[in-house]
Amino acid sequence: MDPASISALTFDVFGTVVDWRSGIIREGEAFGKSHRLPVDWAKFADAWRGLYQPAMDEVRSGRRPWVRLDDLHRESLVRLLGDFGISGVSPAEIDHFNRAWHRLDPWPDAVPGLTRLKRRFVLATLSNGNIALMVNMARRAGLPWDMVLGAEIARAYKPQPEAYLRSADCLGLRPEQCLMVAAHPGDLAAAARSGLHTAYVPRPLEHGPARPAAAPEPAQPFDIVAGDFVELAEKLGC
Amino acid sequence: MDPASISALTFDVFGTVVDWRSGIIREGEAFGKSHRLPVDWAKFADAWRGLYQPAMDEVRSGRRPWVRLDDLHRESLVRLLGDFGISGVSPAEIDHFNRAWHRLDPWPDAVPGLTRLKRRFVLATLSNGNIALMVNMARRAGLPWDMVLGAEIARAYKPQPEAYLRSADCLGLRPEQCLMVAAHPGDLAAAARSGLHTAYVPRPLEHGPARPAAAPEPAQPFDIVAGDFVELAEKLGC
Repeated sequence: MDPASISALTFDVFGTVVDWRSGIIREGEAFGKSHRLPVDWAKFADAWRGLYQPAMDEVRSGRRPWVRLDDLHRESLVRLLGDFGISGVSPAEIDHFNRAWHRLDPWPDAVPGLTRLKRRFVLATLSNGNIALMVNMARRAGLPWDMVLGAEIARAYKPQPEAYLRSADCLGLRPEQCLMVAAHPGDLAAAARSGLHTAYVPRPLEHGPARPAAAPEPAQPFDIVAGDFVELAEKLGC
Repeated sequence: MDPASISALTFDVFGTVVDWRSGIIREGEAFGKSHRLPVDWAKFADAWRGLYQPAMDEVRSGRRPWVRLDDLHRESLVRLLGDFGISGVSPAEIDHFNRAWHRLDPWPDAVPGLTRLKRRFVLATLSNGNIALMVNMARRAGLPWDMVLGAEIARAYKPQPEAYLRSADCLGLRPEQCLMVAAHPGDLAAAARSGLHTAYVPRPLEHGPARPAAAPEPAQPFDIVAGDFVELAEKLGC
């Protein structure tokens, strides 16, 4: 892949750009403190994220019409509060806790790397997160996106091809002019099937120190592999 | 209107944020020089902009399916090249000239004003320009948008209500949590009909020194009137 043939970088966000697990644990601990709840918030965070794919599957399969991720997250949260035996939480408090996903911190290399990459490439999110979530996260974390694309724009959740194809089209680009950046081999495999180039940036701590991240198949091809976003910028000549 | 009730500012762009007429004249002159064309580029710019509303009307009326503004601009350009007796221009040269709309300069107060406003409010475009046009313009001109909304997201051209309503919805906001900022009274009247608040920022030089901008009806109400974006920031307490 010639970097000169690439116009835009499109990013997976949860796990690739931001450390969702530490952020949800931190927000859970603050919520638990104010409600005096003896909950294992790491377990809660993993359970919340565990409901993520099944919730989107209802939409992907067509069993439900389009629902944005904030609403799926909230449904999962309400269910988990019950599972963890937590009651007496007001709707406004649930809303606030649900927006913990808007308040995640980036991995340390993300902002410096994106800042370098932005000089040369259009930077867009290509996440399953909805627009308001991505906009609020970017404002708080200083993520210098040119545009929020992905699931809500396409009304299709990754790895459905529409999510990738419609995002490229919104930028006025052909898929092969886009480089999909993700920590998840499955996301990159789907992007490649839609014609995008791929950059794999493993995030071994995404699921915490005790649980390894999913590794790619040995034969899975990537156009670029980089240890973090600063190395990605270097490899792309930024 | 209490500024504390507003979460996002949504902006008209052509004429309100950027000086389209000077930019198109400048690009026309460069194009004319390289092709040795004796054309009145101010006349050409006004004619190009003159085809803007009629072209969108074909889409608004349903006579044509959705077409993004870059494509409408290009069709108008091809027609005008003929009207002005200009021939022998390659498709690539037409594409480049058409993207003159991506290379417009902001009014002098726009970037300083937006930078102040961004501290407190989500800033989004709510323009009839397509996403790629808005993204490229913002990168070149340094416009600090949090998000590009408007016609392409909604697949509806202002002043159709879907353009305003879908933009607010993408931000997870009710219309009354948005303040529409525009130099055009008709745009603001349509925004108000959809429930958005309104800020009128007249741009008396939009159509050049010889042609006055459309004035509002004396009775048209606005929540805010400001001479430029810096005054708008002051009036909103930024």
